[in-house]
Amino acid sequence: MAPYCYEYPHPAVTTDIALFTLRDDQLSILLIRRRADPFQGSWALPGGFVDPDECLEDCALRELAEETGITGVYLEQLYTFGKPGRDPRERIISVAYYALAPYEALAPVAGSDAAEVAWFTLDALPALAFDHADVIQLAQQRLRAKLDYSTVAFGLVESTFTLGELQKVYEIIRGEALDKRNFRKHILSLGVLAETGEERCNGKHRPAKLYRLAHPGAVQYIK
Amino acid sequence: MAPYCYEYPHPAVTTDIALFTLRDDQLSILLIRRRADPFQGSWALPGGFVDPDECLEDCALRELAEETGITGVYLEQLYTFGKPGRDPRERIISVAYYALAPYEALAPVAGSDAAEVAWFTLDALPALAFDHADVIQLAQQRLRAKLDYSTVAFGLVESTFTLGELQKVYEIIRGEALDKRNFRKHILSLGVLAETGEERCNGKHRPAKLYRLAHPGAVQYIK
Repeated sequence: MAPYCYEYPHPAVTTDIALFTLRDDQLSILLIRRRADPFQGSWALPGGFVDPDECLEDCALRELAEETGITGVYLEQLYTFGKPGRDPRERIISVAYYALAPYEALAPVAGSDAAEVAWFTLDALPALAFDHADVIQLAQQRLRAKLDYSTVAFGLVESTFTLGELQKVYEIIRGEALDKRNFRKHILSLGVLAETGEERCNGKHRPAKLYRLAHPGAVQYIK
Repeated sequence: MAPYCYEYPHPAVTTDIALFTLRDDQLSILLIRRRADPFQGSWALPGGFVDPDECLEDCALRELAEETGITGVYLEQLYTFGKPGRDPRERIISVAYYALAPYEALAPVAGSDAAEVAWFTLDALPALAFDHADVIQLAQQRLRAKLDYSTVAFGLVESTFTLGELQKVYEIIRGEALDKRNFRKHILSLGVLAETGEERCNGKHRPAKLYRLAHPGAVQYIK
């Protein structure tokens, strides 16, 4: 017996999470294989229904933790998808979030409604449940656009990094090689980096200075 | 008798619209005075409940039209506000939109749930219903941030404009005077403007070239 009744029709609300990382120099996204209908067995973004007393962002963090075991990532709200018919069950509106984290920091394990969890590169996505292909496409667009005016790329490197490592992140997201000298000049001019005083050796190259974000935390706008 | 029943609790979903214009050289926002409880008599953003078969953006356009008589503005999704308790009636999640339009194009008339409709400058807002002060603050932040990397400011001028008129929009949103020569050089370098071939006379100044957006329509990212 259905116990929650309202005078007017109500939609259900979910959150979905597009978590990006760099893996073998490729931009990758974390997907789960759905344990239940609809789209049972299909790949989808982690996500699920908002609890009555739960903030939207808390819901996204909880669903990500339940379905993939991943915690402690920095989420940003992407867009709310609400086209009628996007879910065959009922009217379901989904608030999508995106997140970026260095691959080494992540150890996904399937749980809850997820039968399986895996990384996919963006140029080799499987068929996706619901409108999740649209969500991923918009998240990737936002990521590319934010490269130029925010510290979003710093979410994909470790907390300390060389300028070469940071340049690689920019190159992979942009899909093009960048001039090393111009990149270093530009990045250092932004005033968002601090030297750690340490260096890192990468193979045969001479040791490279390690940097960190001067003010770590939320993604900042830069000019 | 409440006829819409669900197995799990469902939130209600609304859209709210922050419509900006420039009026007497001040950034202003359109508010309505609420005809009904909660917050009866308080000022609020135009907005209301999403119909079962309606897209979110269509809902925002419909509510704006019903409550203020304004149609044909270009909306962009801002953010979804979902903190439990933000509405005293029940759990209500609101998808906020923002829009910009030249003042001359707008003739608001109160209707539907709006007892009154009026423009307020952002430095002299009245007490606001719900979390609408937060919505407006975020919309203003987004507007400022997008000035630098999009054509958002062009929403506040007429379809043809002088560079002086455009500079004034930037100055008002930024809250600071800009160097005329640098501004013109920067704006023309973006490659988003086209000359109309016409000129406009403003008072004692010599006639100024009229420009238009080369590709009018949606807000574009620029570098």
